[in-house]
Amino acid sequence: MLDALFKPKSVAIIGASNNPLSIGHIVMQNLLDHNYKGPIYPVNPKSKFIKSFRAYPSVTDIPDEIDLVNISIKNTLVPYVLEECGKKGVKFAIVHTAGFKEVGAEGLRLEKEIVEIAHKHGMRIYGPNSQGVQNSDPEISVYANFTFVPMSPGNISIVAQSGGVGETLKLHLYRVGKGIRMYSSFGNEADVSMNEIIDYYGQDEETKVIMVHIETLKDPSGFLEVASRVTPKKPILALKTGRTSEGTKAVASHTGALVEQETIADAIFKKSGVLRFDTQEDMVDAAIAFSSQPVPKGDRVVIVTNTGGPAIIGVDECISAGLKLAELSSKTKDTLGKLVFKEATISNPVDVVATAGPEQYGGTVEALLKDPNINSLLLVFVTAPFVDCEGIAQKLGEIGKASKKPIVCQVITIEKWAEVIRIIRESGIPVYDFAETAARALSSMTEYGKIAQRKAPLYKEYDVNKTGTEKILSQHRGKEKFLPQDDVFKILRCYGIPTVKSMRIKKKAELDSATLKIKYPLVLKVDAEEIIHKTEVGGVSLNLKDNASLQAAFNRMAEKFEKEKPGFILQEHLEGGKEVIMGAKKNEGVQPTLMFGLGGIFVEVIKDVQFRLAPLSREDTLEMIHSIKGHPILEGVRGEKGVDIDALAEILIRLSQLATDFPEIDEMDLNPVFAFEKGKGAKVVDARLKIVRA
Amino acid sequence: MLDALFKPKSVAIIGASNNPLSIGHIVMQNLLDHNYKGPIYPVNPKSKFIKSFRAYPSVTDIPDEIDLVNISIKNTLVPYVLEECGKKGVKFAIVHTAGFKEVGAEGLRLEKEIVEIAHKHGMRIYGPNSQGVQNSDPEISVYANFTFVPMSPGNISIVAQSGGVGETLKLHLYRVGKGIRMYSSFGNEADVSMNEIIDYYGQDEETKVIMVHIETLKDPSGFLEVASRVTPKKPILALKTGRTSEGTKAVASHTGALVEQETIADAIFKKSGVLRFDTQEDMVDAAIAFSSQPVPKGDRVVIVTNTGGPAIIGVDECISAGLKLAELSSKTKDTLGKLVFKEATISNPVDVVATAGPEQYGGTVEALLKDPNINSLLLVFVTAPFVDCEGIAQKLGEIGKASKKPIVCQVITIEKWAEVIRIIRESGIPVYDFAETAARALSSMTEYGKIAQRKAPLYKEYDVNKTGTEKILSQHRGKEKFLPQDDVFKILRCYGIPTVKSMRIKKKAELDSATLKIKYPLVLKVDAEEIIHKTEVGGVSLNLKDNASLQAAFNRMAEKFEKEKPGFILQEHLEGGKEVIMGAKKNEGVQPTLMFGLGGIFVEVIKDVQFRLAPLSREDTLEMIHSIKGHPILEGVRGEKGVDIDALAEILIRLSQLATDFPEIDEMDLNPVFAFEKGKGAKVVDARLKIVRA
Repeated sequence: MLDALFKPKSVAIIGASNNPLSIGHIVMQNLLDHNYKGPIYPVNPKSKFIKSFRAYPSVTDIPDEIDLVNISIKNTLVPYVLEECGKKGVKFAIVHTAGFKEVGAEGLRLEKEIVEIAHKHGMRIYGPNSQGVQNSDPEISVYANFTFVPMSPGNISIVAQSGGVGETLKLHLYRVGKGIRMYSSFGNEADVSMNEIIDYYGQDEETKVIMVHIETLKDPSGFLEVASRVTPKKPILALKTGRTSEGTKAVASHTGALVEQETIADAIFKKSGVLRFDTQEDMVDAAIAFSSQPVPKGDRVVIVTNTGGPAIIGVDECISAGLKLAELSSKTKDTLGKLVFKEATISNPVDVVATAGPEQYGGTVEALLKDPNINSLLLVFVTAPFVDCEGIAQKLGEIGKASKKPIVCQVITIEKWAEVIRIIRESGIPVYDFAETAARALSSMTEYGKIAQRKAPLYKEYDVNKTGTEKILSQHRGKEKFLPQDDVFKILRCYGIPTVKSMRIKKKAELDSATLKIKYPLVLKVDAEEIIHKTEVGGVSLNLKDNASLQAAFNRMAEKFEKEKPGFILQEHLEGGKEVIMGAKKNEGVQPTLMFGLGGIFVEVIKDVQFRLAPLSREDTLEMIHSIKGHPILEGVRGEKGVDIDALAEILIRLSQLATDFPEIDEMDLNPVFAFEKGKGAKVVDARLKIVRA
Repeated sequence: MLDALFKPKSVAIIGASNNPLSIGHIVMQNLLDHNYKGPIYPVNPKSKFIKSFRAYPSVTDIPDEIDLVNISIKNTLVPYVLEECGKKGVKFAIVHTAGFKEVGAEGLRLEKEIVEIAHKHGMRIYGPNSQGVQNSDPEISVYANFTFVPMSPGNISIVAQSGGVGETLKLHLYRVGKGIRMYSSFGNEADVSMNEIIDYYGQDEETKVIMVHIETLKDPSGFLEVASRVTPKKPILALKTGRTSEGTKAVASHTGALVEQETIADAIFKKSGVLRFDTQEDMVDAAIAFSSQPVPKGDRVVIVTNTGGPAIIGVDECISAGLKLAELSSKTKDTLGKLVFKEATISNPVDVVATAGPEQYGGTVEALLKDPNINSLLLVFVTAPFVDCEGIAQKLGEIGKASKKPIVCQVITIEKWAEVIRIIRESGIPVYDFAETAARALSSMTEYGKIAQRKAPLYKEYDVNKTGTEKILSQHRGKEKFLPQDDVFKILRCYGIPTVKSMRIKKKAELDSATLKIKYPLVLKVDAEEIIHKTEVGGVSLNLKDNASLQAAFNRMAEKFEKEKPGFILQEHLEGGKEVIMGAKKNEGVQPTLMFGLGGIFVEVIKDVQFRLAPLSREDTLEMIHSIKGHPILEGVRGEKGVDIDALAEILIRLSQLATDFPEIDEMDLNPVFAFEKGKGAKVVDARLKIVRA
């Protein structure tokens, strides 16, 4: 419970100072400038007064209860004052001071020490190396933060790992006259975590939309859990920086985290319904729309304009962002036909032309809002000097206040018509500088509409032979190695994953009896733990059509790999299937990642793969399969029949179950899996499985 | 020569009015508000005075010479006043009036009429249905336009097909305090063309960068010619709307143009070195950087920041936009080591930390500018309340004024530090709200740097058998049809494009002698003009290994296609090559488009193809081949050898030569072309060629 942090009844400032360039001074000034509603206690052993306030030599000298302290003294002094805070019964300590984990081993030690001290006293640490928190709730109005963007009430809450990014986001909102609800930039996250903060925002009734900036996910599984809980109620918009490998390195040097979390983060966002953005601007512009507009019920947008060109740009960007142009109903067309000037265009985009006044422009928007074919509206409005622009704005404002469908707007104007923008914004319709921005914001809202409507996933648990798998794995347990293919296939079969017929033989004499069980054409593979990349070393012979070629292949391999004393795998040679690849990879701190893609060069060159986190619902797997670019190949191109996608989906779910059940499974590749025609299933042709000491 | 349009010595306003909502009034007011340097003559037969000016009943009543008239009277009256203007010796007539081509056949007739009248008198029409022109040159200061964004001098010139888009662009510049040089939104382009205007801007010494908004290219080949001439001297930034098919439809309904020009436009931009943008914001933000910063000499950027997070965002966006992070030289590292605080990070991004003052931040930038490893700088600067922010700005300003390398900047601040932004901007360093924007602007400048440095293309003309080709084509001339494969192959060979060995036979008896010339395995194909999609109808037999299977295939096809009385093609069956596809397509008004891609599903599903306009230089073809996503497949993956890219490049050039030489060639597909190992060439395996009446 973070109430004493975000709604503190009293704040002490340790390191308060009369030096206007000190953090302690700035925090105090921010609290005063924003009319913090509780008492403020400056703490400074050297000054009797800080500003007009009586200062206290120590927090223990304060006669009243303290919810929150802001600390901005030298790092090595922090443990000492925290002891005092603990004794005083302080609930939260915002540590602005830097010089902890981010500077190396000694700093890390100090960081651990201050958390221990705090916890000993039942106190929580926010930071260290942190910017602070804000809450614009007029009953509280706390700006316990040393930065400068003025705060005003709103319903967007922000949590930013980087204070600089947090400021940039707040600044953009400030520029367009949008308030915030709560703000938080948590620094080193030694104790109070980002996930707790998101959870807190999720429960805050006044928060309508949450923006998150992430550099590294300290607790990915906690994030997944919290975000999954919040997103059905309100949107979480996320910017995860370090999305390029160069960016990741920069993150690492910045925060001390070292793990490349990119793929996992993406899979976590998808699973939890978090909307991911690539740029600050796109995220904050979407947040503005979310804060005042209803979520669209579908993806069909209509564009209304009084100037042609920008509307076409709006169309381009809507389509690029995944929206569809709504078809106007004939009723709507009739209504518009009677309403607009004859030069107007009554299709989508609707061009009411520059001479349209309040009746034409406003009436058009009203008619379109009633059209059931339309889910959302993008308006382009240039303040043509020869019409009653404020009248149009008034009309749009009235409509905007009552609308159950989202409306976004580009207004092309200057100061002279500032009132136009003010009126439209006041109604809740966001006003953007560019049609593209408006289109992307609508697209994000539409995407969230789908997330908010999605059903709770049904995770089917297949009836599998876990004991059999356990038995096989136990023979290898405690080692870090690739399992022999024979064992991998057995494990797959235990989990109901179909493989080609195969058997392991040890010597040539077994070939004859084997070929009674598996029919020609055959594949012969060498099978030994030391030989991982069999194809590259000549350990695979495909399409052996008769006994002679089988014998020859066997002799060749037996000789070649004499040293390794290998076994051999004999398996069916299949043709005519489409090759796909599936995989699973163990993660630290969160469920395994599952992978799906088309085989071969599609994975290696085109990088056409999808990743999702276990567990997988049927919907997840279908979405995964449909999301690869090469998906039409699986549905059938050039008159070919489509492959058995249901079979692929089932294998993915079973694979996910297997990877989840056995934490010693580090990674699995089913490569290739042959997918046959619809109804004819799919079979694993080759597979690798690596275990680690779990 | 458009001097009398953009630098008019006198302006008459036909339709000038005292009604402040009329276009005539607004244009006159704009001229007055912006202190137009020449005389203004209102023309109005009904009012004696317009504002404080004596009005003239007709343009012919004006006693002085008139360079330019602005016309905003009823469409049907325009021909009449144009006659008068012509008699008066007016040089240019800006027709604001709508109701011409854009409203249908009657309007188109009227539009043709006014152009005829004008040309009869040696006068030029600008428009109709046009917004107007502006020129901020202080010696002229003409705002012959009815819109509202205030004009101030600058070096960015804009030509916008859509006035709404033009206003949006000007508005953004205005908001960040940037002036413009010239502006033009030309409406229906009945006479004065976009290409003329670009040419004019290109020759204007004060114009440093040109922004173009295009919906449809009326004269693509003219654009190609003009743009190719301008881009080596100054950048042309283009936004081509209608980039989605929905957008194209919207363009069509807006301007009356009907042709999908998307692929051609893209190829024209590539060939002429025009920088294409997807959004207005990206284009105008790049223009801001171009207007005041030198063009980088390479793609290595360094990021300097005093707050970590936004710099990481800058890294992500730089990398995504194709830039590289520069490695700091050891000399630079030494210099920085002595300069910055110990908490600073001396790598790329350089984090001077928030406590850095003018000496640290400015000194760092100075040191980095001297580093030969660095081509450009992206600064992130938060006005930390505890340092001398104006001092930093002063220092950056001094550096910015002298710098030979481009510097762009994100400043995170509020009004309190408005002076910081003013000082930095004054030095020419553009200030953006987001690091992403700054990164993308740098990337555009870097891209232009490559264009400005590229050599004039060398178009090699191969020695080909044009007469032979002519002879074959003449047999089919005048028809619209696909040529028989035998003829297509003969034409390809005339142009030195290698094909598989093949010959045409008519009857079974010829098989024996044919197989003496072409060795097994063979391919047999039916060959008749009526049969286009041979494979689908069973007209192709691959990999015939011996006489028996060849005879059988022949018998089967002869029976199947008895009705068509076909010929047959016998050709080598090749294996082991990588399939690629090449094509050529005739264009209206501009050279043919050449196409290159990987074969099969890569074209159909992944859409991994590149288009360029003929003629092709060797560099063009290599760039084309390298630009497909699947390019690594051609270079060799999984230990395979790469294919003979030189051979593919040569075929592309020869194909381009062929398509250019014969305008009756409507389209050609070489599909597949088999590319063999480096040094072993490539061969066309199948080809189609369609001719039209040229």
